[in-house]
Amino acid sequence: MNGAESLLRTLVDGGVEVLFTNPGTTEMHMVGALDSVPELRGVLALFEGVATGAADGYARIAGKPAATLLHLGPGLAYGLTNLHNSRRANSPVVSIVGDHATYHNTFDPPLNSDIEALSGWLRGPIRRPENASGAGTDAAATLTAALEAPGQIATMIVPSDVAWSDGGVIGVPVMPRPAPIVTQEVIGRIADIIRSGDPTALVIGGPAVQEAGLSAASRIAAASGVRVLQELYSNRVERGAGLPAFPRLGFYPEQVVAQLDGVRHVIVAGTKAPVAFFAYPGQPSYLVPEGAQTHMLAEVGQDAVAALVQLADLVAGGTAAQVTEPRRPQLPTGPLTLQNWADVVAALLPERAIIIDETISSGTTLADATAGAPRHDVLMQTGGAMGDGLPLAVGAAVAAPDRPVVALEADGCAMYTGTALWTQAREQLNVTTVILNNHSYAILRQEWGHFDNRRGVTTPDTKQLLDLSNPAIDFVRLAEAYGVPASRATTGEEFAEQFSQALAEPGPHLIDATIPAAA
Amino acid sequence: MNGAESLLRTLVDGGVEVLFTNPGTTEMHMVGALDSVPELRGVLALFEGVATGAADGYARIAGKPAATLLHLGPGLAYGLTNLHNSRRANSPVVSIVGDHATYHNTFDPPLNSDIEALSGWLRGPIRRPENASGAGTDAAATLTAALEAPGQIATMIVPSDVAWSDGGVIGVPVMPRPAPIVTQEVIGRIADIIRSGDPTALVIGGPAVQEAGLSAASRIAAASGVRVLQELYSNRVERGAGLPAFPRLGFYPEQVVAQLDGVRHVIVAGTKAPVAFFAYPGQPSYLVPEGAQTHMLAEVGQDAVAALVQLADLVAGGTAAQVTEPRRPQLPTGPLTLQNWADVVAALLPERAIIIDETISSGTTLADATAGAPRHDVLMQTGGAMGDGLPLAVGAAVAAPDRPVVALEADGCAMYTGTALWTQAREQLNVTTVILNNHSYAILRQEWGHFDNRRGVTTPDTKQLLDLSNPAIDFVRLAEAYGVPASRATTGEEFAEQFSQALAEPGPHLIDATIPAAA
Repeated sequence: MNGAESLLRTLVDGGVEVLFTNPGTTEMHMVGALDSVPELRGVLALFEGVATGAADGYARIAGKPAATLLHLGPGLAYGLTNLHNSRRANSPVVSIVGDHATYHNTFDPPLNSDIEALSGWLRGPIRRPENASGAGTDAAATLTAALEAPGQIATMIVPSDVAWSDGGVIGVPVMPRPAPIVTQEVIGRIADIIRSGDPTALVIGGPAVQEAGLSAASRIAAASGVRVLQELYSNRVERGAGLPAFPRLGFYPEQVVAQLDGVRHVIVAGTKAPVAFFAYPGQPSYLVPEGAQTHMLAEVGQDAVAALVQLADLVAGGTAAQVTEPRRPQLPTGPLTLQNWADVVAALLPERAIIIDETISSGTTLADATAGAPRHDVLMQTGGAMGDGLPLAVGAAVAAPDRPVVALEADGCAMYTGTALWTQAREQLNVTTVILNNHSYAILRQEWGHFDNRRGVTTPDTKQLLDLSNPAIDFVRLAEAYGVPASRATTGEEFAEQFSQALAEPGPHLIDATIPAAA
Repeated sequence: MNGAESLLRTLVDGGVEVLFTNPGTTEMHMVGALDSVPELRGVLALFEGVATGAADGYARIAGKPAATLLHLGPGLAYGLTNLHNSRRANSPVVSIVGDHATYHNTFDPPLNSDIEALSGWLRGPIRRPENASGAGTDAAATLTAALEAPGQIATMIVPSDVAWSDGGVIGVPVMPRPAPIVTQEVIGRIADIIRSGDPTALVIGGPAVQEAGLSAASRIAAASGVRVLQELYSNRVERGAGLPAFPRLGFYPEQVVAQLDGVRHVIVAGTKAPVAFFAYPGQPSYLVPEGAQTHMLAEVGQDAVAALVQLADLVAGGTAAQVTEPRRPQLPTGPLTLQNWADVVAALLPERAIIIDETISSGTTLADATAGAPRHDVLMQTGGAMGDGLPLAVGAAVAAPDRPVVALEADGCAMYTGTALWTQAREQLNVTTVILNNHSYAILRQEWGHFDNRRGVTTPDTKQLLDLSNPAIDFVRLAEAYGVPASRATTGEEFAEQFSQALAEPGPHLIDATIPAAA
């Protein structure tokens, strides 16, 4: 057995089921080894950022480790941005990067580069087996590291001769330690704060924005009046009828300042204390009000859900969680607008849907519209890097072929990783992509307005660089180019009809929805 | 004047004319400052890899420094792969990366990352001004560093508060030192080797594959019988009727071994001694024959052209260079094939064309077919990273609006940076893109065959991961989606008609040319 086969077998034994890849010459023996390891499904992406974003989406929905296989430093570089989003999502990803043979980089061939420097940017551990016999052991250790709570990107750099040489030995992944428990002392101290009756906010995130954590937070709120807020961007949020729902922290500092106005304590579970997404002149970066104390109930990586449940038992006793009633908006009529498009999605959202939310400036009404829709998951762009949405949809659909995936995608974001549509067609994934097409980087126009610099707003140069209308991108043709059936909607009626049809048919579809940007 | 304006003014004073960008919130004040610096043209890309590849193409054709503006670490990450190609081309590029405000990263907001780690991967210097008054000085130093022979990527990380704060001071770029001269002693010693009559090869690259270097090498060959070879991938090659032409080093080790068979000396000018692009079991990495000596006439970064001219004067006296006669192939008829498609390009290539060669496995006959065509430049993928071609075409066309750009692009390569077509349409660039569409990663099938591992060749998994036919990508629709007129050619007649028409009309065009891959 060669090193490549021992590596893949080790990953399969450790629970890896899918390898998202865009391979090259140095990965040929890994690709070949797939034939000997049929339990591992190879999914091809035409661009590395699609492979890495898909791995993230897969891990979030499958609850299993994801794996990618990329081509040396330059291939990894194309995939790094969505690995950044993945790092911020704390998704467990084994990032396998092929390299030249162990003896070859000395000669600095054109594709040689410092792969460790790129992988190190992701803050996870890096391994590089020196020979075939070490490939399995390193694969096992890399998988274990990826699964360490809260989950991280662990890299394995595989020289081509390590892959092609015989002498491979299958490794044995060690199951990672469970997430560390929060001490009774900490929970008790925070319970006392809540009992004190001081104005208090509870900020939850990570695993705590799924049912168990949401319910515990709701019981705490119901019993004590604590103000509960969710982090802005999450790995996976459970939402819909029958679940408690809480407002998300705002994008702009002044919004969070208002949300936390008057509190004396901010309790944080499963996420970090609120900080501004971007800095703005004269506005704070750290958003806990001055004079308020921050209390970490559970750090990222600790068992936040167990801590919230125990806290709820202490302060809320038998108080029940308050859940959202089933509620669907009316289907809108007439031209699609920033305000009404989400009503179509909410009115027609099927059971157990997975929503990918990369709506950026067009998503303002989405959360409210879908609050009472059938229970669903929402995956978000956790690291703030554009282009995650279409790949996340690929991975989510691979992880849950029986669930409808609805990718809500801002037009600008769709331009970074459009070839994800080709993988959706190739794998016949059940994804309905809705392009929220305002023909501009509307978020940047909005940001521009947010800076007190009106000079730039009205001048041609600056406007030109935020404008996507010249030429207008034809997303219908783009989807068809990649083998995805597509249509265009400009009214509520058209959007509703096309959305229903897309959900009714198997395989991928795309709807180019014209949504005028906010004035 | 704010820091952003002082930075841009400094670059303009130093000869920077174009800024290729995909900006975000942290770059808003740089974008705004463009309004105050109308001498600097902002060119928008929808993906960072397009911006960086375009900067490379611009620098290669304009012979001027290029500049990019990208959005924090994740934006730079998307752009790194083509910056790798650019590094291998030794193109002078000022890479400006926006970052959070100086005081903001402490709080680790989602987009925070180690930008220095990413920039460091490119091996160039990195500067980060701490306040607005330092932005101009650092911009001047960064531009000077980018222009240092042979040219490199110099990075400037600009915190948003440095950009938006007042107190900017325009910096004064220092003109870089000229390329170091090769000593008379070295040139004389190498002249003696040539005069010895020992079997000798001369390998030229970098600036030496343009007219002056080619002519000097031809004189040396004509007078002494030295075997002249060009490096495999070059920044910019001058070719065509009236110029000397030499074979390029082969892609595979055994090809180079054959090219250098029997030589006792290998003289190298403007490039590195030949090494294998990839390692293969049982094949050498360093390709100078055992028993042959390597002599560096001019290291990369030294004045290789001057050294070759002086060497020619010593060993060739008045011997004239041997130039290629004007010669055009016949236009082929019937189905397009791997062998005949390049004849169409060669038969119809206009004067002063710029060819972008990202043909990979489909380009086998291109060099011979175009050898006697009207004089032209060829830009190649220097770092071996796919996806450089379409962006290089953008930059070349921006640099030389009066010259026809012909981008010859393998279908697989076109999938990494397809949105370059949108920038071509937006800027109405005179680019004719020819997709050499074999519906597969044919190079990888070829590589697979090159490894003695037939098991993988015939099995479905492996074949599937090298196959782009399911679904077939419709490049006509893709181009139209981005506003580029397009057509499909399957015969020589169709290709000739469409190619002529595309060259005759202004603005971008794309031809999807069906080229069956080698069996």
